Amino acid sequence: MLSNIRVILINTFHPGNIGSTARAMKNMGIRNLYLVDPQDFPNEQALTMAAGAKDIVEQAVITSTLAEAIADCSFVIGTSARDRTHSLPQMNARECGERVITESQSHPVALVFGRETMGLHNDEIQQCNAHTYISAHPDYPVLNLAAAVQTICYEIYMAHQIQAEQPYKSNSNQKEKTYPNTQQMEYFYQHLETTLRNIGFLIKQHPGNTMLKLKRLFNRARPERQELSILRGVLSTIDKLAESTKKESTKKEEH
Amino acid sequence: MLSNIRVILINTFHPGNIGSTARAMKNMGIRNLYLVDPQDFPNEQALTMAAGAKDIVEQAVITSTLAEAIADCSFVIGTSARDRTHSLPQMNARECGERVITESQSHPVALVFGRETMGLHNDEIQQCNAHTYISAHPDYPVLNLAAAVQTICYEIYMAHQIQAEQPYKSNSNQKEKTYPNTQQMEYFYQHLETTLRNIGFLIKQHPGNTMLKLKRLFNRARPERQELSILRGVLSTIDKLAESTKKESTKKEEH
Repeated sequence: MLSNIRVILINTFHPGNIGSTARAMKNMGIRNLYLVDPQDFPNEQALTMAAGAKDIVEQAVITSTLAEAIADCSFVIGTSARDRTHSLPQMNARECGERVITESQSHPVALVFGRETMGLHNDEIQQCNAHTYISAHPDYPVLNLAAAVQTICYEIYMAHQIQAEQPYKSNSNQKEKTYPNTQQMEYFYQHLETTLRNIGFLIKQHPGNTMLKLKRLFNRARPERQELSILRGVLSTIDKLAESTKKESTKKEEH
Repeated sequence: MLSNIRVILINTFHPGNIGSTARAMKNMGIRNLYLVDPQDFPNEQALTMAAGAKDIVEQAVITSTLAEAIADCSFVIGTSARDRTHSLPQMNARECGERVITESQSHPVALVFGRETMGLHNDEIQQCNAHTYISAHPDYPVLNLAAAVQTICYEIYMAHQIQAEQPYKSNSNQKEKTYPNTQQMEYFYQHLETTLRNIGFLIKQHPGNTMLKLKRLFNRARPERQELSILRGVLSTIDKLAESTKKESTKKEEH
């Protein structure tokens, strides 16, 4: 299960934080580190702070966008301070640990951590299926990046240990659903956008943020694999209809 | 409750770890930092790493020994890797969080963190009433000092939040016992040693480690305040007996 979990750091400023993150991960048995557009990497400071987790730093996967880093994941969790304004399902770190252990039994799961100063941008949050926050004192709720990674990974490891001690209980709770990965969702969104353009719902000259809102909705709903097939089937049916309507109107024009 | 909790760092090598510890504490609402014989403090690096918790660093209490730092505490918890060989009661970080919240309702509680490389020395562990460890992966279970403080303080804050949500349940579980503080235990040990010398059980020329073993036993047993009064009463009775026996034998010699 732990091998199906990855930690993604976006646009990290201090290379020392990359090293501290690697150490925090390895302490908790999590080994897959992805770095999206790191500002200063490779850097000796990352290896120094990693201490006994230099292997995690050296094997880190570098990507230029978050989309690449989560392409094969079926559950993506964004981390930031608690926020009641955005629309994703929210859970605290303890609930997150339990959820990650359940999900990672069947597919890759990503934990996404934003910049030291700014956290995650809106377009990054919208690529997530859920959001987690660490309960903290209101006087100063802003954890250091590596400290946040430590806390989340600790809760995952605790959930892992608790489940190992109660296999029967956990198995009975386990859901048998299978989910598409981010890449498959991306294909669906492309299909959706094409179809909506074909039928004139979206107008190329005035794209607006309709697609953004639809993506947000579907990410939140998190369709299962079978449900996504149905949605793709609906789109194909619309496509055919649009195609025949087009032919029909072309014929009429010819007459 | 949180104001009755202190974090004690012993002989810290990297001043940056002092700052990161202060931040981890403040994030979780814990404000009392004690530094026992820090190797490089004050130091700018501590303030840099503290970020929004510089006040915690600036108000830190410096002592030269652990005994001074815990003198007014009634429950002292040492932290290190899990170890089945030593004799203290052990609990994981989650159990520690719950225990600290219960204890801190009635008296000061200390969490003691050892050196970056060596942890706590045996004589320091023997000054503790209990021991806590953070569950970690056996491949690399050694957390960075500030990461360990973060995890323990997080569990304390979680226990605090959970209790705040369930006041009735927690109150009914709450124990009404009161415990002596470390200074009072120290007076008892001095009394015990004096008495044991007076009656010839301990011989000044061959002190051995009998007192050490007795201290370990009583720290583990953790007498309540009333029980300690009884023990002090026993010692006083023995003292009087020893005194009168001495007078008696002096009289006999005079005859």
